[in-house]
Amino acid sequence: MKLIRFGERGSEKPGVLMGNDRRDCSAHVADWNAAFFRADGLRELATFLEVEGARLPAVPPDTRWAPCVARPGKIVCVGLNYADHAAETGAPIPTEPVIFLKAPNSVCGPFDPLLIPRGSQKMDWEVELALVIGREARYVPDETAAAACVAGYCLANDVSERAFQREHGGQWTKGKSCDTFCPLGPFLATPDEIADPQALALTTDVNGERMQSGNTRTMLFTVRFLVHYLSQFLTLEPGDLVSTGTPPGVGMGHQPPRFLKAGDIVEQAIDGLGRQRHHCLPA
Amino acid sequence: MKLIRFGERGSEKPGVLMGNDRRDCSAHVADWNAAFFRADGLRELATFLEVEGARLPAVPPDTRWAPCVARPGKIVCVGLNYADHAAETGAPIPTEPVIFLKAPNSVCGPFDPLLIPRGSQKMDWEVELALVIGREARYVPDETAAAACVAGYCLANDVSERAFQREHGGQWTKGKSCDTFCPLGPFLATPDEIADPQALALTTDVNGERMQSGNTRTMLFTVRFLVHYLSQFLTLEPGDLVSTGTPPGVGMGHQPPRFLKAGDIVEQAIDGLGRQRHHCLPA
Repeated sequence: MKLIRFGERGSEKPGVLMGNDRRDCSAHVADWNAAFFRADGLRELATFLEVEGARLPAVPPDTRWAPCVARPGKIVCVGLNYADHAAETGAPIPTEPVIFLKAPNSVCGPFDPLLIPRGSQKMDWEVELALVIGREARYVPDETAAAACVAGYCLANDVSERAFQREHGGQWTKGKSCDTFCPLGPFLATPDEIADPQALALTTDVNGERMQSGNTRTMLFTVRFLVHYLSQFLTLEPGDLVSTGTPPGVGMGHQPPRFLKAGDIVEQAIDGLGRQRHHCLPA
Repeated sequence: MKLIRFGERGSEKPGVLMGNDRRDCSAHVADWNAAFFRADGLRELATFLEVEGARLPAVPPDTRWAPCVARPGKIVCVGLNYADHAAETGAPIPTEPVIFLKAPNSVCGPFDPLLIPRGSQKMDWEVELALVIGREARYVPDETAAAACVAGYCLANDVSERAFQREHGGQWTKGKSCDTFCPLGPFLATPDEIADPQALALTTDVNGERMQSGNTRTMLFTVRFLVHYLSQFLTLEPGDLVSTGTPPGVGMGHQPPRFLKAGDIVEQAIDGLGRQRHHCLPA
């Protein structure tokens, strides 16, 4: 299944993607949110779609694509999870996952404008494979149990302001949590749609020029390992988002560095998870 | 006004503290949550209490004290915000606030057990003045406007596992977001209850021995400055929590270091904001 959401900010509704058609599920379910995932809603949804899917109303074509899931309770990000990306930032290869949190209100839709924060000089892109938690993960005993906690996968852009992140003291938070710094979607693909999450090509183009190109097979820490590992430090809850790091080619890694400015178009894609497209605008 | 919540985890209800009496407001308001603060609920509540306060039902005495506000959308913490605490950790004095996020599901009540994470060797205490946001703060122009975004103050313990925080690579997140690592309360005091948030004594006792003793007057960055500053990097939303850093005396700063073990009793207090008491137990 491919879950979408649609409608204006503050009144988003849940739907599904059937082929290329967006279908409205809002008469049957409140939202793709923590309560839905916690109640094993995906299982019920599969049964429902088999019987009723063809009768679901279409979403009007010009309707905004909203973030593919409701606002997560938390967003856990993994830094430097591709060896070649760690090298381009000048950081040592991590021996354990580098973890940070992103503010949940940084989420936006897959075609929304990216807002360049006031005072920003170094806004950068990071295409990432993200996963949504379907089942509480707390002290998960092994990677098999961890895999069972994944509700699905989606494309995320871990948008980052490098000066805010690295030149204002302390932790990375200031450069990771600005408004619109976490576009999600276009859809959440359930695990049955993704044959192998560790064999997906990821790309970023800026103004039509290929900037990032990588494959999840070069991740240092796999999806299954990450969920297992994270659950030893904090409890992942249904609806939480985990973003698994970015491959090489971020703006900061170019010679000379390339950063986003008003008017730029950022396009990202991941095999089987669709593509995002954003216009950069001043906040 | 002093806002409280009561009841078991998952079924907490809102109330107020009138003198030493807890009164039940659940017939009149859903919760002290984002929607309540966003709708300027505090103003209505003040009027309501004047007229109806004396008729509110009492909370049965043995009822659990829940976190004083509903789960925040995000928890923004300030590190090293007391010069003398920065010195004890060996860190340089920050020239700008050090910011990090704590997972919202780390929140627990003011008398709940503190769970010692599996594998923990260095669990530590941090008494902190926290504030809850009442009005969206985005590019707030000055400190006066920032002060108007504060819905109230409460006691928070920024519980930290120092090995998870500092010895597992990367950012501080792993040592800050474990279950029960953010006890809140006993109550949220509206600003009119706190004459000067920059003149409050804070203490931590462990097993009856005074460990932390400080005063918010030695903060490097004041509450008003912090809200103003943060709003330049991210949007603070109604119901969000900001915790403003801890004074000297954390376990890591003692010679030799002192960390929490099962059976320890942690008590913390802040002038005008009451006290917490926790029993430490294995997770």
